[in-house]
Amino acid sequence: MTSLSHPEVRRDLTALHLELPKNGLVTWTSGNISARVDGGMLIKPSGVTFENLTPESMVLTDLDANVLEGTHSPSSDTATHAYIYRHLPHVGAVVHTHSPYATAWAAQGREIPCLLTAMADEFGGPIPCGGFALIGGEQIGAEVVRVLTGHRSPAIILQSHGVFTIGPTPKAALKAAVMAEDVARSVFLAVQLAASLGTPVKTLDPADIDKLYDRYTNVYGQR
Amino acid sequence: MTSLSHPEVRRDLTALHLELPKNGLVTWTSGNISARVDGGMLIKPSGVTFENLTPESMVLTDLDANVLEGTHSPSSDTATHAYIYRHLPHVGAVVHTHSPYATAWAAQGREIPCLLTAMADEFGGPIPCGGFALIGGEQIGAEVVRVLTGHRSPAIILQSHGVFTIGPTPKAALKAAVMAEDVARSVFLAVQLAASLGTPVKTLDPADIDKLYDRYTNVYGQR
Amino acid sequence: MTSLSHPEVRRDLTALHLELPKNGLVTWTSGNISARVDGGMLIKPSGVTFENLTPESMVLTDLDANVLEGTHSPSSDTATHAYIYRHLPHVGAVVHTHSPYATAWAAQGREIPCLLTAMADEFGGPIPCGGFALIGGEQIGAEVVRVLTGHRSPAIILQSHGVFTIGPTPKAALKAAVMAEDVARSVFLAVQLAASLGTPVKTLDPADIDKLYDRYTNVYGQR
Amino acid sequence: MTSLSHPEVRRDLTALHLELPKNGLVTWTSGNISARVDGGMLIKPSGVTFENLTPESMVLTDLDANVLEGTHSPSSDTATHAYIYRHLPHVGAVVHTHSPYATAWAAQGREIPCLLTAMADEFGGPIPCGGFALIGGEQIGAEVVRVLTGHRSPAIILQSHGVFTIGPTPKAALKAAVMAEDVARSVFLAVQLAASLGTPVKTLDPADIDKLYDRYTNVYGQR
Repeated sequence: MTSLSHPEVRRDLTALHLELPKNGLVTWTSGNISARVDGGMLIKPSGVTFENLTPESMVLTDLDANVLEGTHSPSSDTATHAYIYRHLPHVGAVVHTHSPYATAWAAQGREIPCLLTAMADEFGGPIPCGGFALIGGEQIGAEVVRVLTGHRSPAIILQSHGVFTIGPTPKAALKAAVMAEDVARSVFLAVQLAASLGTPVKTLDPADIDKLYDRYTNVYGQR
Repeated sequence: MTSLSHPEVRRDLTALHLELPKNGLVTWTSGNISARVDGGMLIKPSGVTFENLTPESMVLTDLDANVLEGTHSPSSDTATHAYIYRHLPHVGAVVHTHSPYATAWAAQGREIPCLLTAMADEFGGPIPCGGFALIGGEQIGAEVVRVLTGHRSPAIILQSHGVFTIGPTPKAALKAAVMAEDVARSVFLAVQLAASLGTPVKTLDPADIDKLYDRYTNVYGQR
Repeated sequence: MTSLSHPEVRRDLTALHLELPKNGLVTWTSGNISARVDGGMLIKPSGVTFENLTPESMVLTDLDANVLEGTHSPSSDTATHAYIYRHLPHVGAVVHTHSPYATAWAAQGREIPCLLTAMADEFGGPIPCGGFALIGGEQIGAEVVRVLTGHRSPAIILQSHGVFTIGPTPKAALKAAVMAEDVARSVFLAVQLAASLGTPVKTLDPADIDKLYDRYTNVYGQR
Repeated sequence: MTSLSHPEVRRDLTALHLELPKNGLVTWTSGNISARVDGGMLIKPSGVTFENLTPESMVLTDLDANVLEGTHSPSSDTATHAYIYRHLPHVGAVVHTHSPYATAWAAQGREIPCLLTAMADEFGGPIPCGGFALIGGEQIGAEVVRVLTGHRSPAIILQSHGVFTIGPTPKAALKAAVMAEDVARSVFLAVQLAASLGTPVKTLDPADIDKLYDRYTNVYGQR
């Protein structure tokens, strides 16, 4: 391990990957986290189960998805992560999951409407939905960048696929992935309730969303 | 720790906060518990994850939400908790969550109807729903006090937001939060079943609710 | 403990009560198990949380629900358990829960239809639903006995309340409670699917139910 | 143990059976795994709870379901597993569960439509549904073989019953069982969402399914 680059980021990524199954966001080997590092990024190896991940198994690539260091093949989503880092310089980490409620919204190709204060806080509005793109190349990354550019939400769902979240750090992107599933579930339940009671779905007032997002971004938490 | 006030309440609050994720009531840092103490209240620090809470991190404020003791910023809901203590002298503790099923009812702005004996026991009828209020000030507290004054329910849901529960002790308020989510789920499922089977939702007879509530309040448990 | 009667049954009951929260069948202090013993029955004390139960805390009563031994008040459902033992001599144990999916069916006052081979195996047909009865007396027990007499199902749901299961041993009654929630959930999901797809719910053929129940009762398991 | 055949397969099967409850695929004693070995197969004993399984308790049978070695009765599904091994020579392991969402689809007798890239990856299209067959004989096995012959999916649901998955190894068949429940849930949620929003369910384009399946089969994972 001492001979490998970025030992701290490798340890951090390994630990944070375990949060994915712990929070019910992934099944078997689906889902992955990457982190931007000097000269490229570190990402999960392809098809390895979460409990078998080690700091050494994380793969270092450049931002054209070429492997620089590592004995494993990198995630199938490597080109997509790389595309996001190339085009969104403020992004320090990317998380991808197939968390079940968010994926159900993705299957329908619908943005998740903003019905809850917790959603206004974290996402500043609805969670947008990008179009369909095949896995393996950078088309998914292009769709993420197209939709999230200029958008307040750190999360996007992709038609018929799953969730991508971005953040300045792996922990921040993970938080967005955890919160995306949480609000996807509550909003799903609210929509079911609305349908069964025959009442309309109540979205938040955009002015209130702005106030909540501003407070959460600038006042909430420890300074 | 020895130099800080109320060491026992601080320990108690720290332990009870861990019951929130354990019971599926909170995600990431959402949710908080406070307890009334001599001269004010103790409350969770803002934006700290539950596993990182310590007795020392709890913040002592007066009942106008001014920090008296503590190195952390208090919860964003501090002014709301303080308002509740100022106006409801019988309240010794307040719990706030975004538990998913109760929050789905809140998103629809609907009280949770009383369909179950367990709900008559703990809440003495429906769980009422308060109007929308922004986070950060005491408007939420004012809505909680307005609706729960003279009401048997120790729980309220708030439009587009989540759940507040009150109790004589932190454990009692926590119990109300756990039971609120439990009945919110069962009643949600019953309403879905009613819709899919094309049968009406069956609410309990108010006279039976009174008898159940009376027995649970006066006979149930150890004396 | 050495001075208390039935130490083995007390230990067994304490351990089996922990299976209730582990299997998601109860919340806080709801739910209880009793076992018939010589001269009466042993039952959970009222309002005690599951992790605080001890063999010593179990209460011995006669079959008229009078406490014979124990420093705690017995469960609010004691008269109901006693009524069941008095009227159904083959019953050696009773389990009561408010497990969420079965309780949703109970809230609608509908028997759970037999759609699954697992349900034919364990219950020999639908899980029947009894009428509403208040808690505290033996009316619930009377409703359980009325409905389950001559019925193959070891489980019954009660209007607006929850689930009772019976068995020759505490483990068998617990199994019925676990399976009742499992099939209540799968059948709930099937009914939702039927409604959303616009297709009818498919119940099993009664002749197939008989064959499955016979095989499960007489062939399944270790001899 | 040293005197029993196939000690490694016995240990592997015992460990993998524990993955069934851990992944929420089984309740009480339902569900089982078998593995093909020289001269027959090893399978779970009937009606034994998962935590009580040992390598020694696994039963060795020939491919006509006759017990060759073991003191326990084999699973009720033994004839069905044997039938599958006799007719599908590429199958090295079989898993059977009543996982709740897949079983709900089975109750309706409907194939699970392919709405998700994760489903195209693992199953190469919809998960097919076989007809009703009684438990205990080899009729279920015949239905599995009839439907899965020439089909890309390693999973099948059976009318009013549950799920069977096949694979070259026990781990591969287990993975298919875990993924089958995962996609059964997400597709269930998507169908509910479609119904409540009044929008049609969006299935994947067959050409895209082919591309995804090909990439997942030939490129994904470690080589």
